[in-house]
Amino acid sequence: VPADVNANGLHILADFQGVAPSLLKNVTTLEQTLREAAACSGATVLSCHFHHFGGGLGVTGVALLAESHISIHTWPEIEFVALDVYMCGRLDPTLAIGYLLRKLAPTEHEIKYIVRGSKTI
Amino acid sequence: VPADVNANGLHILADFQGVAPSLLKNVTTLEQTLREAAACSGATVLSCHFHHFGGGLGVTGVALLAESHISIHTWPEIEFVALDVYMCGRLDPTLAIGYLLRKLAPTEHEIKYIVRGSKTI
Repeated sequence: VPADVNANGLHILADFQGVAPSLLKNVTTLEQTLREAAACSGATVLSCHFHHFGGGLGVTGVALLAESHISIHTWPEIEFVALDVYMCGRLDPTLAIGYLLRKLAPTEHEIKYIVRGSKTI
Repeated sequence: VPADVNANGLHILADFQGVAPSLLKNVTTLEQTLREAAACSGATVLSCHFHHFGGGLGVTGVALLAESHISIHTWPEIEFVALDVYMCGRLDPTLAIGYLLRKLAPTEHEIKYIVRGSKTI
C-alpha cells in the first residue's frame, strides 16, 4: 500500500431544523456556502452540482471533493436541511460543519459522527 | 405543511472491503452501477457526476436523486469502497445497498443505518 493512500475518514451527518427559508432556495448561494465550508476544512473542491426542485421548493446538491464530498438537501417549506460532510485523510470535517452551523443558523440541530475507512491500512 | 412534503428518510453508510480492483476504476461502469442501484429502490436519478483520480487510482462520484443521493468513493489499490445511499420519502434504500453488495461482492462489509429527517412532520 502506498504511503499516501488514506481511505480513513470521518463522515458527519447533520440535520438542521428552523433554518430561514430564504437561505434554502438559491442554488448560487448554496453552492457558495458548500465551497466556503470545504475551504474551512482545507478541502479541494473538484466540482459542484445542484438541482432546484422549482418554485418555493428546495434544492439538492453536492460538492465533490478530492477528499470525498459534501451534500445538501433542503426543504424551505419546513425550514429543514439535511447535510453530510465526508472527508478522508488528515482533514477535519468538523470545521466545515461549524461553518455551516454559523451560516445557516438552525434553531435546532442533530449531528452524528461516523468513522469510515479500510481496516487494511 | 403540504401533504407531499416528506423530508424523512434513511441514510445508509456502507464500507466494502475486498472488492476486485477491476470493478473500482471505470467511471462508465460505476455510473451504470449507481443507476442500477437507484433503480432497485425505484429512485429517480437527476444526474450523475464522476471524477477519476487517474492511473490505477480510484474514482469519486455521486448520483443526485429526486429523493436525495448515492455516493461512491473507491480505492482500488486497497480494494476498498465507501458508499452512502440516502433516500427520503417512501423508498427503501436497503434495496439499492443489496444490489451494490451483489454487484461489488466485497469479502467484508460494514453497514450503518441512520434515520434522517425533520421532527416537524
